[in-house]
Amino acid sequence: MADWKKTEQLYEGKAKKVFATENPEVVIVDYKDDATAFNGEKKGTIVGKGVINNRMSNYIMKQLEKEGVPTHLVEELSDRETAVKKVSIVPLEVIVRNVAAGSFSKRMGVEEGKDLLCPILEFSYKCDELNDPFINDDYALALGLATQEEIDTIKNYTRKVNEVLKKFFLSIGIRLIDFKIEFGRLSDGTIILADEISPDTCRLWDVKTNEKLDKDRFRRDMGGTEEAYQEVMKRIFGE
Amino acid sequence: MADWKKTEQLYEGKAKKVFATENPEVVIVDYKDDATAFNGEKKGTIVGKGVINNRMSNYIMKQLEKEGVPTHLVEELSDRETAVKKVSIVPLEVIVRNVAAGSFSKRMGVEEGKDLLCPILEFSYKCDELNDPFINDDYALALGLATQEEIDTIKNYTRKVNEVLKKFFLSIGIRLIDFKIEFGRLSDGTIILADEISPDTCRLWDVKTNEKLDKDRFRRDMGGTEEAYQEVMKRIFGE
Ligand SMILES: Nc1ncnc2c1ncn2[C@@H]1O[C@H](COP(=O)(O)OP(=O)(O)O)[C@@H](O)[C@H]1O
Ligand SMILES: Nc1ncnc2c1ncn2[C@@H]1O[C@H](COP(=O)(O)OP(=O)(O)O)[C@@H](O)[C@H]1O
Ligand SMILES: [Mg+2]
Ligand SMILES: [Mg+2]
Repeated sequence: MADWKKTEQLYEGKAKKVFATENPEVVIVDYKDDATAFNGEKKGTIVGKGVINNRMSNYIMKQLEKEGVPTHLVEELSDRETAVKKVSIVPLEVIVRNVAAGSFSKRMGVEEGKDLLCPILEFSYKCDELNDPFINDDYALALGLATQEEIDTIKNYTRKVNEVLKKFFLSIGIRLIDFKIEFGRLSDGTIILADEISPDTCRLWDVKTNEKLDKDRFRRDMGGTEEAYQEVMKRIFGE
Repeated sequence: MADWKKTEQLYEGKAKKVFATENPEVVIVDYKDDATAFNGEKKGTIVGKGVINNRMSNYIMKQLEKEGVPTHLVEELSDRETAVKKVSIVPLEVIVRNVAAGSFSKRMGVEEGKDLLCPILEFSYKCDELNDPFINDDYALALGLATQEEIDTIKNYTRKVNEVLKKFFLSIGIRLIDFKIEFGRLSDGTIILADEISPDTCRLWDVKTNEKLDKDRFRRDMGGTEEAYQEVMKRIFGE
């Protein structure tokens, strides 16, 4: 067990801080309770979120590793801190939709909760200034965001992630509506899953009641946000 | 030479009327001078446009047929009327971008006129009520707009159309910035190119001056719209 120590802070995002370590290939992510929505327009706090997202994300990444999806996970260091492989993030938000919801429902005129004929995989260009615009594969190529080979790899891993997550969440009584993941490049160019998988980045509905157990409670001022995150935590870890 | 006769009007679109004939497999399109932009929000007239678009579209479709792209063209009947194979339109606006312009430039923060690393092919869902939203292949499948096989066929034809059009326009001193085409299904399911190819549906810039020779003059109130359409006509037909 390596003794990872934070050196300087590299950057602070909306939900996490990232710190360097003495190993140039490893960084430490530190999960905050800060919550934002609508590209930072709405700001708030979800008490305890950082702890939940850290532990949940690591738990899921461990499962994904076993299923053949390489991830950035190195070692959980504390309630909120995890050592991960440092990557340069591919500037694509990779979104999978199993059920119509959110911006998809609005743009496409499809009722929230409607099952899709097949899962949709889509990319947004991860760029706060442009509001993370929805793009397609050709955009990614034409703008030099990723190579065709990287796109193929990312899509294959993503489909696998969807399969594994759908099954896992169903086993704890949760319907996986949609989710967003990010990939990164190691220094040798290898593509691995990075960032986080949590109720911040997934839409999770109770199988029986369709109750929302995710960040939509915060986005839509529904109340019970902390309780929803805790409920997911409890179903995963039985606490 | 068949003697096509209009029977009842089937529908009227923003730029053309479509009439039935005695042959259930053939319709007559009648090109209007009506111009619209921003999904019908802006309305006007471009005098002589119907004649130009009819003749130009037919001229180009004839070339595409020779290059192996099947089209709906049957026979030009008059200045504004053409007999075409009746199709059920695939509800996809198929867009190709060679150079950044229009909504792409705005959304992606790329200056108008910038060459793209590679051409972009994209789909919009042809649906006025939803404002023709940008989608990707998975959306088309998940919403049942087209099958995977149809999408593959449409993409292959579209790439060919881009090659042929780029070369053709360059030969008359015009840079093909981007364009929109539509495909349809014959009664046996065969996919063919339908609708029109004209300054309404292409961005065309003079190679030397970058002067706009297309509907952007109307969209942006630049003046000289009629003259621009006539200039394209003159370069094609030498009149
Ligand atoms: N393994 C990693 N190596 C380097 N950066 C990472 C890694 N995993 C995630 N990141 C990045 O850390 C930053 C902080 O995360 P977050 O607060 O979620 O940011 P954002 O505001 O972009 O959502 C993000 O830019 C994210 O892409
Ligand atoms: N070969 C064809 N058979 C049947 N319909 C066609 C054919 N070619 C074009 N159309 C359709 O004719 C309609 C009228 O054209 P247009 O005025 O351009 O319509 P829009 O307002 O949808 O742009 C459109 O719905 C177009 O898709
Ligand atoms: Mg984030
Ligand atoms: Mg039209």
